[in-house]
Amino acid sequence: MGKNCLVAQSGGPTAVINASVSGILDANMKYNYFEVVYGAKNGIQGVMEGKLIDLSHLTKDEIDLLKLTPASALGSCRHKMKDFNEDESEYKMILDTLEKYDIDTFFYIGGNDSMDTVHKLSLYVKNKGIDKKIVGIPKTIDNDLMETDFTPGFGSAAKYISTTVLETYLDASVYKDNGVYIVETMGRDAGWLASSSILAKINGKPVVDFIYLPENPFDKEKFLTDVRKCYEEKKQVYIVASEGLKDANGDYVFKSKTVEVHDKFAHAQLGGVGGYLKGIIEEANITNRIKVLELGTAQRAAMHCASLTDIEVSHQCGLRAYEMVLDGKSGFMAGIKVKSKTPFETEIVEIDPSLVANRVKEIPREWITDNFVKEELIEYLTPLIQGQPQIKYENGLPKYIKLNIR
Amino acid sequence: MGKNCLVAQSGGPTAVINASVSGILDANMKYNYFEVVYGAKNGIQGVMEGKLIDLSHLTKDEIDLLKLTPASALGSCRHKMKDFNEDESEYKMILDTLEKYDIDTFFYIGGNDSMDTVHKLSLYVKNKGIDKKIVGIPKTIDNDLMETDFTPGFGSAAKYISTTVLETYLDASVYKDNGVYIVETMGRDAGWLASSSILAKINGKPVVDFIYLPENPFDKEKFLTDVRKCYEEKKQVYIVASEGLKDANGDYVFKSKTVEVHDKFAHAQLGGVGGYLKGIIEEANITNRIKVLELGTAQRAAMHCASLTDIEVSHQCGLRAYEMVLDGKSGFMAGIKVKSKTPFETEIVEIDPSLVANRVKEIPREWITDNFVKEELIEYLTPLIQGQPQIKYENGLPKYIKLNIR
Repeated sequence: MGKNCLVAQSGGPTAVINASVSGILDANMKYNYFEVVYGAKNGIQGVMEGKLIDLSHLTKDEIDLLKLTPASALGSCRHKMKDFNEDESEYKMILDTLEKYDIDTFFYIGGNDSMDTVHKLSLYVKNKGIDKKIVGIPKTIDNDLMETDFTPGFGSAAKYISTTVLETYLDASVYKDNGVYIVETMGRDAGWLASSSILAKINGKPVVDFIYLPENPFDKEKFLTDVRKCYEEKKQVYIVASEGLKDANGDYVFKSKTVEVHDKFAHAQLGGVGGYLKGIIEEANITNRIKVLELGTAQRAAMHCASLTDIEVSHQCGLRAYEMVLDGKSGFMAGIKVKSKTPFETEIVEIDPSLVANRVKEIPREWITDNFVKEELIEYLTPLIQGQPQIKYENGLPKYIKLNIR
Repeated sequence: MGKNCLVAQSGGPTAVINASVSGILDANMKYNYFEVVYGAKNGIQGVMEGKLIDLSHLTKDEIDLLKLTPASALGSCRHKMKDFNEDESEYKMILDTLEKYDIDTFFYIGGNDSMDTVHKLSLYVKNKGIDKKIVGIPKTIDNDLMETDFTPGFGSAAKYISTTVLETYLDASVYKDNGVYIVETMGRDAGWLASSSILAKINGKPVVDFIYLPENPFDKEKFLTDVRKCYEEKKQVYIVASEGLKDANGDYVFKSKTVEVHDKFAHAQLGGVGGYLKGIIEEANITNRIKVLELGTAQRAAMHCASLTDIEVSHQCGLRAYEMVLDGKSGFMAGIKVKSKTPFETEIVEIDPSLVANRVKEIPREWITDNFVKEELIEYLTPLIQGQPQIKYENGLPKYIKLNIR
C-alpha cells in the first residue's frame, strides 16, 4: 500500500468517457491496490501543472452517476508531446508530479493522439529505468483507432445518429413534396459515424437514400445525378454525409476558414459539408426545398440516448486496464476484441500503443459502395448500439454529476 | 350507427401529434360512436381530393405504437382557405368528401393556421345549415396558441431542448478556454422554446448564461457587452437564441434568402440566427472559439426524449374532443386548462377557434428580462417536461409505425 494512481482524459469528449473512469474507481473499490485514485484536470496539461483532485472520496452512488454522465468530467486538453530526445522538459514536469503524489500508474483515456502520448511516456520511463506504469484507454466517437475492434464512445454516437435519422426522416416525410434532407455527421478521416445512419429503418428498410463517406472521393456529378433521379422518383431524398468528405485530389470539399485555436494538432476544423451539398443541389436546380441538420457536439454528448453496450465496454476498459496493471503489465492500451458475434461478447486485450498512435482506421472498402454501405458493415454496426441505460431523472431531466475541477 | 368521422393533421409535425389521433381511436374503441374512423392524407388537401384511409382496422397494439410515433403519420400540408364569400369551391370539395364518406365529424389537428380552417369551415356549415361537426385539436411545438394554457408538442420539444442543452453544456465545459456555445431553437414569433433551456441545471444552477427571445428587440451592443464580460470572467459563454430574433424595427436579425415553396402562408423561413450571432462575436474580437448548434427538425421529432406529460395531454385532447362531440358540441377547439399546479392536473375545455386563428401568444413580458428569464416562467415550464414514456425498442432503436399513406 501507499502507492497511488492517476487518471486523465484527453481530446474530444464522448458520452461514455467517464464510464472508463468509473471502471477504474470500481476496480479500486474491489481490489484496493491503490491508496488514492487521483484525477488530473484537463488531461496531460494538468499532470504537468500538478493540478490533481482526489477521486477516492467518491461514494459508490457518485461513481455510478459518473458512469452515466457524458463529457470528460475531469476536463480535457489537446496537447502534442515533443520527442523526448528533442525536448525533455515536459517529461520531467510529468515525472515530478508522479513522484510528488507517489503515483505508480498513470491511466490516460483518449484517441490516437493520446496513444502517442502513452507510447512516448512509456518509452521515456523505460529508457530512464523509472518504475512507473503508463496505460492507455481508448476513446473516440470516430471509431477510427487501429488494433481495437471498436472504440468506446462510438456505439452511443451511432445510436444517437441513427435515432435522430429515424425521427427526422419521419418528420421529413409528411408533405407531398418533401425535398432533400441532409444530415452532416462528425468524422473527419473515417466514415463510421455517417455509416451508422444505415441502422435507421422503417418496416425493415433503411430510411437513408445515400451515405457519403470520406473513404470515397466525392464525385459531384455522380452525386447530382443520384440525387436528381431519387428526387424525381420519390419527391424525397434523405442524405447522410460525413464532415470529412474529400474530392479526388484528397482535399476537403468544404473547409472552414477558421481553424480552432485550441486544436494544437492542426487538424482542419471542419463543418459545413451539409451547407456545401445544399448549395450544389440548389445550383443544379434539382429543388430548393432542402434542409440541413448538422448534428454537432450533441452527437458525442447524448447520454440520454446512449448504447448500454457501449457504456459497459467503456467501463470494462477501465476495470480491465486496472486488473492488467495488477498483473504487472505496463505500456499498453486496453483494446477491445469481439470474442463472439452471437451472443455478442467482447474481451479487453493488451495493445501496443505505438500501433495506434497517429494512425486512422478507415472502413474497409469492400464494406461500402460509392453512395451506400453493404451488409457486412450493417452486421458490424448492429451489436454496438444495443441496449438502453437506466438513466436517473430529476425534475424531468437526466441527472448528471459535475466534479469540481475549477 | 353508420356515421363516420375523419381526422387530419396539418402544419409542422411534432413528436406527439399522433397521440391525439390515438386518443380519437381509443375513444372510438371505447364508445363505438362512429362506424369508421377515416384519416385524410396530407391534411385538408387530402380531404379536398378525397384521399382517405381507413384507420378503423388498426389494432390496439398499433394504436399504442402510433401514440409513441413522432411526426404526422397521416401526412401534412400548409394550405390557407380563402374566405367562402370570395371563393366557395374548396368548401364544396370538402363537403363532397364528407358527404361521400358519410362523415359526421371532422377533427383537424394543427396550429393557429389550422384553427383558421376550423373556424371558417364551422362558419360555412353553420351558414349553410349543414349538419357536420368541425373540431380543432391544438398542436405546435411553438406553444404560441391563444386561449390554451399550453400546446401539445411543446413539452416534448422543451424536454429535448433542455436535455440537449444540459449535455452539450457539459461537452462545452471540458477545456480551460471553452469559448462561446450558441444553440439556435425554433420559434419564429414567440420564445417559449428558447426559454425552456433554462430548465437545464447542474447542481441546481441553470447552465445557460443568456437567453435571447423574439419578445425582446435584439440589442446588438448590449449583447456584445454581455458576452464579452461573461467570456472574460469564465472563459465560457453558453447562449440560447430563438430563430425569430428581431431588431428594434421589428425586422428579423437574420433572414434566409430562400423562402420555402411549400410554406404557403408566406411565413419567412428562418434559420441562421446562430451563425449571425457567431459572426458579430467574431467581428467584435471577443473570441474565435465559437460553436453553433441549430437544433432543426430534430427538436420537434424526438419522441425518444419526449415528455410523458405532453404525450398524455395530447392523447387527452383527442379523446376528450371525441367525447365533447358525443355531448353534441361542434365548432370548437379542444384547449388545455391547468386545474391544479400541485399536483399538476389539466382539463380539456371548449375554445372558440376564432380566438386562436392567426394569432400568436407571446411570453408575458413580466416573466422575462432582456437576456434571461424569471422564476414565474420556470414554474410554468417545469411541469410540462415531466415523465418519460416507455418507448419500445427493436434492435437498439425506437420502434415506430408508418401508415401507408402513399
